[in-house]
Amino acid sequence: MALIVQKYGGSSVADPEKIQGVARRVVETAEQGHRVVVVVSAMGKTTDQLVGLAQAITPSPDARELDMLLATGEQVSSALLAMALQARGRAARSFTGHQVGILTDAAHTRARIQRIETEKIARALEAGEIAVVAGFQGVTAEDDITTLGRGGSDLTAVALAGALGAEVCEIYTDVDGVYTADPGIVPEARKLGRISYEEMMEMASLGAKVLQARSVEFAKKHGVPVHVRSSFKPDPGTLVTREDPGMEDAVVTAVTHDRSEAKVSILRVPDRPGIAAQIFGTVAEQGIVVDMIVQNISRDGYTDISFTLPRGDRARAVGVLEEVARRIEAAGVTYEDRIAKVSMVGVGMRSHSGVAARMFATLAKEGINILMISTSEIKISCVIEDKYTELAVRALHEAFGLGKERGGGE
Amino acid sequence: MALIVQKYGGSSVADPEKIQGVARRVVETAEQGHRVVVVVSAMGKTTDQLVGLAQAITPSPDARELDMLLATGEQVSSALLAMALQARGRAARSFTGHQVGILTDAAHTRARIQRIETEKIARALEAGEIAVVAGFQGVTAEDDITTLGRGGSDLTAVALAGALGAEVCEIYTDVDGVYTADPGIVPEARKLGRISYEEMMEMASLGAKVLQARSVEFAKKHGVPVHVRSSFKPDPGTLVTREDPGMEDAVVTAVTHDRSEAKVSILRVPDRPGIAAQIFGTVAEQGIVVDMIVQNISRDGYTDISFTLPRGDRARAVGVLEEVARRIEAAGVTYEDRIAKVSMVGVGMRSHSGVAARMFATLAKEGINILMISTSEIKISCVIEDKYTELAVRALHEAFGLGKERGGGE
Repeated sequence: MALIVQKYGGSSVADPEKIQGVARRVVETAEQGHRVVVVVSAMGKTTDQLVGLAQAITPSPDARELDMLLATGEQVSSALLAMALQARGRAARSFTGHQVGILTDAAHTRARIQRIETEKIARALEAGEIAVVAGFQGVTAEDDITTLGRGGSDLTAVALAGALGAEVCEIYTDVDGVYTADPGIVPEARKLGRISYEEMMEMASLGAKVLQARSVEFAKKHGVPVHVRSSFKPDPGTLVTREDPGMEDAVVTAVTHDRSEAKVSILRVPDRPGIAAQIFGTVAEQGIVVDMIVQNISRDGYTDISFTLPRGDRARAVGVLEEVARRIEAAGVTYEDRIAKVSMVGVGMRSHSGVAARMFATLAKEGINILMISTSEIKISCVIEDKYTELAVRALHEAFGLGKERGGGE
Repeated sequence: MALIVQKYGGSSVADPEKIQGVARRVVETAEQGHRVVVVVSAMGKTTDQLVGLAQAITPSPDARELDMLLATGEQVSSALLAMALQARGRAARSFTGHQVGILTDAAHTRARIQRIETEKIARALEAGEIAVVAGFQGVTAEDDITTLGRGGSDLTAVALAGALGAEVCEIYTDVDGVYTADPGIVPEARKLGRISYEEMMEMASLGAKVLQARSVEFAKKHGVPVHVRSSFKPDPGTLVTREDPGMEDAVVTAVTHDRSEAKVSILRVPDRPGIAAQIFGTVAEQGIVVDMIVQNISRDGYTDISFTLPRGDRARAVGVLEEVARRIEAAGVTYEDRIAKVSMVGVGMRSHSGVAARMFATLAKEGINILMISTSEIKISCVIEDKYTELAVRALHEAFGLGKERGGGE
C-alpha cells in the first residue's frame, strides 16, 4: 500500500463538475489500495479575481493582507473536493496550510517552506481518510497566513510528498506530460517517458510551463519522484526523477522556447571592476529578476553588457539604467522587446561535444541571426528575433532527431 | 480613549466601493482617538454563492467542510478592509477566527463560543493598529474551523466587545435603528433611542430582523452596550442596554410582526401525562424548532394542541405528526400556512395591567380574529390571518400611541 500525493491545478478544479471528475480520479487511486493526499489549487480564475478585488481597493496592497485574501481560493477548492469525495462514500478531510502546519518564513507572497508538520495528515490517513490540502499556502511562527508564490501548489505537493515519504508526487495538469518541444509548434514533438530533475529544472527556467523550477529543485533535494500527467486522460505522463544510465544515451532531450522576455543592452560601458555590480545592483533594487547576462570582451577599455528580463519589467529597468549609464559614462541604453529565447536541454551534453556548433549551424542554415548566447552544463540558449521562433524550434527539433524514440526513453 | 468594537454586515461591504466607505467610517472613529476593532461579514451574497457551490457538489455537504468553505467569505472581506484602511494611512491587521483564538465547541454550522483569547488583538491595538476580525467563525480545540450560525458576525462582535471590555459594540446595518414598528407598514413608526436587552431579545424572536436574539443575550450577560445604527447615515441609532428607570414610563415599546411561520394543530388529543412530550419530542427529533405552543383546557378528557414553526418545516412536521396522531389516537392534524404573528413588547408590561385587554379590543374593533395567544412577562403575541397583518400592526401602533415620543426616549 503506497502513499501517493496528487496535485490538481486550477483548470482541473475550475467548476463543480470538474471537481467531481477529480474526486472520481482520487477515489480510483484509493480503491487501488493506496493512501492518498491531494493538494489543490484555487478554482480556475479565482486567484486573478481576488487580485482584482485587492486592486480595486488599492494599487499596492499590503503583502500580508494579500496572502490572507489569496489563501481563501485554495481553502474553497479543498473543502469542495473533500465534500465530493465524501459524496462518493470516502472519508475525507480538508486542511488549510495553517491546519497542516506548513511553516514558512514571513516573506509574504513568496514565502519559503521551513518545516512541515506531518502529524495531522498522518492521523487522517491512519483513520482511513483522504487528506485534501489547500495548496500554495503556509503559516508563519506568528500564525500569519503566507503564500508560496507562482507555482506554489506544486511546491506544497512536492514538499508534502517529501515530508511524508510518499512513493510518488503526481502533478495533474492540462498537458499530459513533458514534450521534446511545444506540440503546438512541432507536430512531431514526442512525450518524454522520463526526464532528470536537472533537465526539468532547466526546462522550467527556459519557458516550459509545466512545472516550476523551484518545485523540481525541492523534489531533487528530497528525492521525490514527480509524475507530470493529464487530469483528463488516464495515460501515464512524464516521470521526473534522478538521472539513470539509460538517459545518457540521448545528447539532447528537448528544445524549449520562451517569448516572455525582452533584451536590454548598456553600450560602451567603461570596463572597470564594480561596474557590473553597480548596474545589476540597481536592477535588483527594483525587484526585477534578470535572466541571461552576456558581457562581450572588452575593446579599448569599453564593453557592452546585455541581459534579458521579463518583458513587463523592461520599461522600469530602462528607466533606472539610463540614470546609471550617465553616472558610469556609458554610451547609452538600448532595448528590444520582440525577442525569443530558444534552448536545447540535455544531460548528455556533459559528455558530448558539438551540440553548440550543431545548434548554431542549424539556425544559420535557416538564416536566423543569433543575438545572445548563454550556456550551462546541460543547456544552450540563443536569443533570436521573435518572428523566427517557430522556424527555429522546428529546425532544431528536426536537426537533433528529437521526434525519434531515444534509447533510454519510454 | 475608548475601545470601540464596530461590526459591518454583508450589505455594508458588498463591493470595493462600499468597503472604502466602511474604511472611511472606521478611520473617523480612530481619528477621534478611539482604539477600534472591526468585525466584518462576508461581502453581499458571498455566503449564498458558497452554499450554492457546495450544493452543486452534494445535496448534503458535511458540516465540517461547509464551515471550512463558508469561513472564507469573512476572511476575504477582512483582508480587503485591512487593505482599505492601510490605503488611508492607518496601520491595520486582519485576523481570522482561528488567528484571534475564538474557541468554540465542535457543533459545526452552529458552534457556540467557549472562550476568546484577547492577547493578539490587544497586541495589535497596543501597536496602534486597527484590528479587523473575520466575523461568523471560530476554531475548535482541534484547530477545525467552525461557524456560529445565523447572525454569527453580530455574535463575534458582541463577544469580542465583552472579552475586550469595550465601551460599546456598534452594529452597522442597512436600517438605522430599532423602530416602534416596521416603517414599511407604519409611516409614523418612530426610531427608539434606547431599548432594554430584554425587549430587544423578545423583538428579535418576534420577527424584528435587526439583531439576533443570541447576540443580545450574550450582550446582556456580559453587560455590553450595543448600538444599532446605519452604515450609510451618521445619525445615532438605537442603544440596546440595561433597563433604566426612564424606560419604565412606557408601557409598550414596539409592535412587531412575523410572517415566516405556519401553524399546526393536533386535534382531540387524549389528555394524558406524557402526550405533549411525545408530540414535541417527535418534532424535535426532526431538528425543527417550535415557537409558540398553546394547549387549551381539556374537555371530556381531550384537548387540542397548536404550535407555530418556520413555514419551511411545516410539511415535514405534519408528516411525522400524522403518524404520532394515529399512535396516540388523536383525531387528526390540521395546519395553516397563511398566518402572521403580531406582538406587543415592553418592559412596562411588568407593572401595568390592561395591555392584553387593549390589544385584543383593538384587533376585535378591526374585525380581526385571534387564532392563538401567547404571553411572556414583557410581550403578548397574537397569531392572526396573514392578510390582516398590516391592518393589525397599524391599528396597534396607533392604539398604544407609539408614534409619540415616550418619557424615557431619545
